[in-house]
Amino acid sequence: MTGDPGGPPLSGTERTRHRRLREQGRADRAELFAVLRAGLVAHFGVLVDGAPMVVPTGYGYDDEHLYLHGSVASQSLAGDEPLACVTVTVVDGLVLARSVFEHAINYRSAMIYGTPRAVTDPEQKLHGLRRLSEHLAPGQWDYARQPSRKELAATRLLALTLDEASVKIRTGPPDDGDSPDARLGLWAGELPIVAAWDAPVADPGLPAGIRIPDHIAAREGTVVYPAPPTAT
Amino acid sequence: MTGDPGGPPLSGTERTRHRRLREQGRADRAELFAVLRAGLVAHFGVLVDGAPMVVPTGYGYDDEHLYLHGSVASQSLAGDEPLACVTVTVVDGLVLARSVFEHAINYRSAMIYGTPRAVTDPEQKLHGLRRLSEHLAPGQWDYARQPSRKELAATRLLALTLDEASVKIRTGPPDDGDSPDARLGLWAGELPIVAAWDAPVADPGLPAGIRIPDHIAAREGTVVYPAPPTAT
Repeated sequence: MTGDPGGPPLSGTERTRHRRLREQGRADRAELFAVLRAGLVAHFGVLVDGAPMVVPTGYGYDDEHLYLHGSVASQSLAGDEPLACVTVTVVDGLVLARSVFEHAINYRSAMIYGTPRAVTDPEQKLHGLRRLSEHLAPGQWDYARQPSRKELAATRLLALTLDEASVKIRTGPPDDGDSPDARLGLWAGELPIVAAWDAPVADPGLPAGIRIPDHIAAREGTVVYPAPPTAT
Repeated sequence: MTGDPGGPPLSGTERTRHRRLREQGRADRAELFAVLRAGLVAHFGVLVDGAPMVVPTGYGYDDEHLYLHGSVASQSLAGDEPLACVTVTVVDGLVLARSVFEHAINYRSAMIYGTPRAVTDPEQKLHGLRRLSEHLAPGQWDYARQPSRKELAATRLLALTLDEASVKIRTGPPDDGDSPDARLGLWAGELPIVAAWDAPVADPGLPAGIRIPDHIAAREGTVVYPAPPTAT
């Protein structure tokens, strides 16, 4: 997946090439954003002392960037190789085939490669943190107390551009329906997962009489990892 | 997290030290296995051309090893730095605090560090593949057609020892219940996720009259990511 090229096309040939790249990129970007919208946590892979470390963490995004809390990478970013790979995966179910060999998992996954940049500008930091917060807990940025200047300064936010990314999706039944194994008379199909938001649990220390706000109550029973508009 | 020390204790002091290590190791190992039992896919972090790559993949395990399909790491294992980090994460819900700053995620996560070894012995390979298959789809190893010699030879299986691992778990309400923010009069608590196996979906090409086996039908409505015996 490649982002739009920088300058305007200079010739017919270049134009064609650019347009092809852009269109390919655009199509892929829609799938990328569908996975980012559906996922909840990312697995952030960074190098620490030359060895990979994979850390689960919440994330947010806008049209250009993926945002992560920087604390998860504090060790790594002190090093010399700040390259990172951030993977967001939604597991949709199991694929039960006639043979063990053909068993699989239905999933949606996006891998984003890049060099995490520490966001220092206060406005950009607020923007990124808001994206992160609203992706996980929509409505809470305006409901809860927003970060103080001190908290903002204490928060390390990382941004990765979404220029280099790839999306992999598997859906549907097993692949051995037209193989000799189909004659074995075995059941085959999919075992989907449904993940839903359960009833909110009030903090045990919450004073009586505090009403649960609508934006939280309304999530109960809704799906956690929404399906893409068009399955592949 | 450290495994049991090798030899028998030689002195009172050593005995104490060993016992302490063993007990600590044992306690941690129980939590490690609780996460491995609860999880479904792992995120496998390896170095490819010096940059981290994080790939989602199914896994299995026994008392000593974690097993992964080797195909996911074919690129990386050709390189010089076969160190890997495999992370298994279960996301249990959101922690909605009074301040945006204190928002968090309830999760269970295990990180396993090691050098993946290609399993070549056919018996060990069958054992590892069976563990992998039975972790994801219990009962299918005996129900479906098991790997042929050709399939077995074509399958690359990786094993990592479980000697170096760490477990992180967050549960419970937000941490700002006794902060000044508790006086803001805002609702706070947890928004848990329930993930369950949905009704099995038969392969559209399945001939009529093939009954769904009990071990698959029985999963419908059960939780996908079982809670640990004792929450931390």
